[in-house]
Amino acid sequence: MRSANLPDASMAARMKALVEALQQDICQALASEDGGAAFRFDEWTREGGGGGTAAIIEEGDLFEKGGVNTSAVWGRLPERMAEALSTEAQQVEAVPFFATGLSLVMHPHSPYVPTVHANFRYFALGEDRTQPADEWFGGGADLTPYYPFLDDAKHFHQTWKAVCDRHDDVADYGAFKEACDEYFYLPHREEARGVGGIFYDYLRGASDATFAFTKDAGEHFLESYLPIVRRRREQDYGPRERRFQARRRGRYVEFNLVYDRGTKFGLETGGRTESILMSLPPKVEWRYDVRPAPGTPEAGAQWFFQPRDWLSLSEAARP
Amino acid sequence: MRSANLPDASMAARMKALVEALQQDICQALASEDGGAAFRFDEWTREGGGGGTAAIIEEGDLFEKGGVNTSAVWGRLPERMAEALSTEAQQVEAVPFFATGLSLVMHPHSPYVPTVHANFRYFALGEDRTQPADEWFGGGADLTPYYPFLDDAKHFHQTWKAVCDRHDDVADYGAFKEACDEYFYLPHREEARGVGGIFYDYLRGASDATFAFTKDAGEHFLESYLPIVRRRREQDYGPRERRFQARRRGRYVEFNLVYDRGTKFGLETGGRTESILMSLPPKVEWRYDVRPAPGTPEAGAQWFFQPRDWLSLSEAARP
Repeated sequence: MRSANLPDASMAARMKALVEALQQDICQALASEDGGAAFRFDEWTREGGGGGTAAIIEEGDLFEKGGVNTSAVWGRLPERMAEALSTEAQQVEAVPFFATGLSLVMHPHSPYVPTVHANFRYFALGEDRTQPADEWFGGGADLTPYYPFLDDAKHFHQTWKAVCDRHDDVADYGAFKEACDEYFYLPHREEARGVGGIFYDYLRGASDATFAFTKDAGEHFLESYLPIVRRRREQDYGPRERRFQARRRGRYVEFNLVYDRGTKFGLETGGRTESILMSLPPKVEWRYDVRPAPGTPEAGAQWFFQPRDWLSLSEAARP
Repeated sequence: MRSANLPDASMAARMKALVEALQQDICQALASEDGGAAFRFDEWTREGGGGGTAAIIEEGDLFEKGGVNTSAVWGRLPERMAEALSTEAQQVEAVPFFATGLSLVMHPHSPYVPTVHANFRYFALGEDRTQPADEWFGGGADLTPYYPFLDDAKHFHQTWKAVCDRHDDVADYGAFKEACDEYFYLPHREEARGVGGIFYDYLRGASDATFAFTKDAGEHFLESYLPIVRRRREQDYGPRERRFQARRRGRYVEFNLVYDRGTKFGLETGGRTESILMSLPPKVEWRYDVRPAPGTPEAGAQWFFQPRDWLSLSEAARP
């Protein structure tokens, strides 16, 4: 990758170093947890400036497919990219930009182990890397179980609430949880993608504080996920559970290709296709109008696919 | 379904009767070709007016999944639907509308038998069904092979060229073929979805002539596809070919969910999800950055996934 010539003290340099360190640590821990496969690191460069490293694991003992990708890209924001980045509340112009981040999605073999997604990114506008015209952080983490357990949803949310609470000058668990529920929702299914987590964007505030929050969040991803993996991975399953998983994975594909701003933004602005679509599950099935029979575990799972306040719920609340 | 109260002589009534008759004939012929499964007919109604019939076949001897859907819907065009229908060349307002059409997608088991898609639709604006303020036809047919054969591409295009040539007052094979190549293209893969066919929209012209063309097209769908099915369905295949097919099907999903106007339009405007997503293939696989090894049949297939003038090509043109 061509050098970004980033001043050491710039947020761009600090964030780039952070995501690279997180990629190493997370990959090492996930590969060790997997036990059957290693990540391969695939570096790529971007014509307009920068590049990234896709770290991919496939056909492991635990993970059927997963990626922990980093990128650091810069140049002039193409007009379509500026439009794609803009929201009603936030207009972005075609100016010089720098962006770096880590994005991970892990798809386990076992239908009892949830799929997880996390993303931590930094975006700056303007020529000056030390004094950007504008800069913000975005990111979050969310959990997509197939056969969900309330304890898992609680553990995941509890971890992220604790991270947010430690940085309550910049992070607000309640607001980030609600933003996550809103974002990861499939209107055409009237379903949440999973049990949510936290989601934030355009997080400005004081740069040192937002960076400290981002770093703490990145460093607690493993704590949010691995305990869930460890208590579910030995549970037996068969073709029935795999079929249900394959159909639920269809929802994941529908969300990512129809609604996810990162995916659409990436594909529309000439992003690296294989890195962007790394998020798609390995084996997926679509059948016509499949509805689990009442009383089955698959029908019971449906209760979890609506936004709920997991931390305050008890098992007695389940229908 | 509530009655549309369509005057017999209106184009709305004639087109609705045509798509219903086509659904019966096409389902009967495809089920007979399949030999192992029947279509089940699933009727649904639309809150704002109208409804449809999904005809679904799954796990047949020939077809792994397929649908031949009809609908006739009416009411007041929701603003988002008007926006979704609008193109730069064509602005559509939120007025009373009537729409009817047939849409089919067939996904065979065998990787040697292509997936096929066809669609014939009529759209009218204004209160008066006999004298609409505006009315147009749209539709087309396209072929998506996995292991492609030049003869199949030629047969498919030859059939559609002959249909267009019989109606050269309203239909233009050259233009419709080019529109198909443009429409069914995945920019992020730099690939065509398949070997194309014909595609047309906002086809106004004289109504009787456009209807005659639509009827002739609908009645020749079977001729465009069944001969290809018959010469490929007995060819042996194994897990390798099924894996390649599953990955190519991923492209089909990517196109339909990211680019297809009908799908996006349908999902965004509260269309019937299961009818819209009937088009998605049954079993799909995504792996990271898979590229067929040079010299393999899978690598050879790649030549077919670019827009080409199939009718003028000979086998000698293949690399």
